[in-house]
Amino acid sequence: MLEPWYVTGLIEGEGCFCVSFTKRAKLNVGIETRPSFSLSLNRRDVELVKKVRAFFDCGGIRYSKSDRTFKFEVRNISDLVKKIIPHFEKYPLIGEKQQDFKKFSEVCKMVRANLHLSKNHLRQIIELSYQMNASGKRKYTKGDLLSILEEVKV
Amino acid sequence: MLEPWYVTGLIEGEGCFCVSFTKRAKLNVGIETRPSFSLSLNRRDVELVKKVRAFFDCGGIRYSKSDRTFKFEVRNISDLVKKIIPHFEKYPLIGEKQQDFKKFSEVCKMVRANLHLSKNHLRQIIELSYQMNASGKRKYTKGDLLSILEEVKV
Repeated sequence: MLEPWYVTGLIEGEGCFCVSFTKRAKLNVGIETRPSFSLSLNRRDVELVKKVRAFFDCGGIRYSKSDRTFKFEVRNISDLVKKIIPHFEKYPLIGEKQQDFKKFSEVCKMVRANLHLSKNHLRQIIELSYQMNASGKRKYTKGDLLSILEEVKV
Repeated sequence: MLEPWYVTGLIEGEGCFCVSFTKRAKLNVGIETRPSFSLSLNRRDVELVKKVRAFFDCGGIRYSKSDRTFKFEVRNISDLVKKIIPHFEKYPLIGEKQQDFKKFSEVCKMVRANLHLSKNHLRQIIELSYQMNASGKRKYTKGDLLSILEEVKV
């Protein structure tokens, strides 16, 4: 079994707390909120990726052909709130990723309480999420999402 | 102060054990052997890089403009043998980087004993070093270095 502080150190470098959004006409708010926690390692470290999955006891592993990495990923909101977030509260990140984690944690707790289904809270979630992972690529700009929200009545 | 297992986890993802070589006509063997241990992080994490330097209590920090990272690096052979290697013996790496570390450790101990100044041992050091960091860029091929060695008489 991995040491908890080792896992935090590894995630500091290679992990990602991310909230992505997808347009969904079927939803009243028009936008789906998808928080995820992931770790990507070069394929030579597939055994380590499996150990991290066993450590957290949730999520799945998939192979990315394009960058030859194995990615461990947790999307289930209950696992995020009950298994992932408590680990990083007990063994906190030390670098700037801690700022991402705090926002991620706030978003997950709002999603868990179904607040992402109301217009005003979703606006808050979008604001928080766009302060995270500033260097990452986004399908939509914050403006795109907020203007979708303007048009809905929830 | 950082937790030792946290440091091992961070290095698993972002650290590098490397042995590079430079042609040096002044040396009897014609080749300088340069082991180094390093950690590179995005500039937003300069404070964390400083904490890692304080943790190991050796080495230096420099900024790389080209990739906007701060790099903590230890080249002094005595620091490598007395401070860096013992940490990873007590709190071992778990992924494939452990294989690099074992070879690095072997090379450092040979360099510390001045074995890199004799032709036959240097050949051994080159063989070990070229089994490490298979994906990294090298100034010389293994063949380049071995053919330099062929011509010297030490």
